[in-house]
Amino acid sequence: MAGLSIAELEERIASSPFNTWMGVEILSADEEKLVCHVKVRPEMLGAASTKAVHGGILAALIDAVCSYVALWVSGGYVATIDLRTDYHRALKGGEMRIEGKMLKSGRQVSSAEASIYDDQQKLIASGRAVIMHTGE
Amino acid sequence: MAGLSIAELEERIASSPFNTWMGVEILSADEEKLVCHVKVRPEMLGAASTKAVHGGILAALIDAVCSYVALWVSGGYVATIDLRTDYHRALKGGEMRIEGKMLKSGRQVSSAEASIYDDQQKLIASGRAVIMHTGE
Amino acid sequence: MAGLSIAELEERIASSPFNTWMGVEILSADEEKLVCHVKVRPEMLGAASTKAVHGGILAALIDAVCSYVALWVSGGYVATIDLRTDYHRALKGGEMRIEGKMLKSGRQVSSAEASIYDDQQKLIASGRAVIMHTGE
Amino acid sequence: MAGLSIAELEERIASSPFNTWMGVEILSADEEKLVCHVKVRPEMLGAASTKAVHGGILAALIDAVCSYVALWVSGGYVATIDLRTDYHRALKGGEMRIEGKMLKSGRQVSSAEASIYDDQQKLIASGRAVIMHTGE
Repeated sequence: MAGLSIAELEERIASSPFNTWMGVEILSADEEKLVCHVKVRPEMLGAASTKAVHGGILAALIDAVCSYVALWVSGGYVATIDLRTDYHRALKGGEMRIEGKMLKSGRQVSSAEASIYDDQQKLIASGRAVIMHTGE
Repeated sequence: MAGLSIAELEERIASSPFNTWMGVEILSADEEKLVCHVKVRPEMLGAASTKAVHGGILAALIDAVCSYVALWVSGGYVATIDLRTDYHRALKGGEMRIEGKMLKSGRQVSSAEASIYDDQQKLIASGRAVIMHTGE
Repeated sequence: MAGLSIAELEERIASSPFNTWMGVEILSADEEKLVCHVKVRPEMLGAASTKAVHGGILAALIDAVCSYVALWVSGGYVATIDLRTDYHRALKGGEMRIEGKMLKSGRQVSSAEASIYDDQQKLIASGRAVIMHTGE
Repeated sequence: MAGLSIAELEERIASSPFNTWMGVEILSADEEKLVCHVKVRPEMLGAASTKAVHGGILAALIDAVCSYVALWVSGGYVATIDLRTDYHRALKGGEMRIEGKMLKSGRQVSSAEASIYDDQQKLIASGRAVIMHTGE
């Protein structure tokens, strides 16, 4: 399987209603890392009082970026088998940089990892997804 | 610590921008289970082609319902330490019922579990959150 | 695929050096649950001072029992894709009862769950494994 | 809290019956990584037929090394809250090198990560533990 190009990944993002809603943008991709960017929108907060971004948004970004890493490496179509997120610090608005990389690429199943940083380069959350390759 | 009442949980949902956006509603609560309801909205889809709900939305609902279970049991305030989601079947729109329950309630840290069903009562996704009690 | 009988599961345990070392025994199996038993041996402790069983032994038992559940349901051969364990209480020696059940049985991939109880019926640890079916 | 020295970590290993049984040895420690070594013993195999090491042993090593990383960074005493292991390749005997590092060090709770390599430097398994600091 040939992996997708950045232009093809951007088409996939554009065809995903929730990834479009979150505003996922690809910043760069080299042999090791796919780097994405998201701007916090007000609906993403978990609590109006603390202004911290909802943990589900952070989990969704780890899922999205791990899936795009798998598509970038292997192409075809994918489905997440399971997703794990560790929450390290509260994120109070601003911008997020999400870095994803492949841990182990397989023919049927791959494992990828992603980390989310705030605009001070502090680690906010990180996690892993196990991804099934569902065909061309 | 005394747990929150359903009315108090509903206030917490109302004060959470993302849980409000997702439309989380409490259907029932007995000594074992907290049952919530969400209607799929078009922005929640992961891919326009497959019409399947984005895995990040399912993870967010497991996080939300596990957190509400912890508040219902123990009150105070909580933060998710980590979140794990298993994806069992694709959900193609419609309604979701999310059932949450406490696995082990602690003073500092609790573990809760949630399962998401479609409107045919099929299990779509399930998972767990480890939750820190951050004070009154 | 036809699942394995209890006698066949016991043969698989007997042919596994580490499961034999741990002393995994099947107590019962009905349509929902596979119940196993293990007696704590001194080498299983995590620290001589606390006398608590090593978390790795508890993880190994969750892996073992989830795998046997998958074999019991589907037969063939399996490999664990990933394993997650939540630690609820320290176990200070004695006996363990491990209950496993299938969460979602699939053709290629299944999810199973197991819980470990001490001889006072207290929940010690629980977790999940995602399992790949690797053929007949 | 001051972290433990390598000599103090070795004392902790020596006082842990199961880590002693597994034969965990510390190879090196620098500001980022703790590197350990284990030689496969015959009782560690998951199946006599495949000669692959039992996934529970790999999970136990990730738990052990993540805990030692937390002790090395912060000292005191620790308990694992939860443990996740991804299995990448079967390990057929020989030696294992386990590399652990801190993801996020906290006062109450820390997250650490470990990876297991075979003697060809191939990644066999990797995972994470969330660890509670239980006092001096």
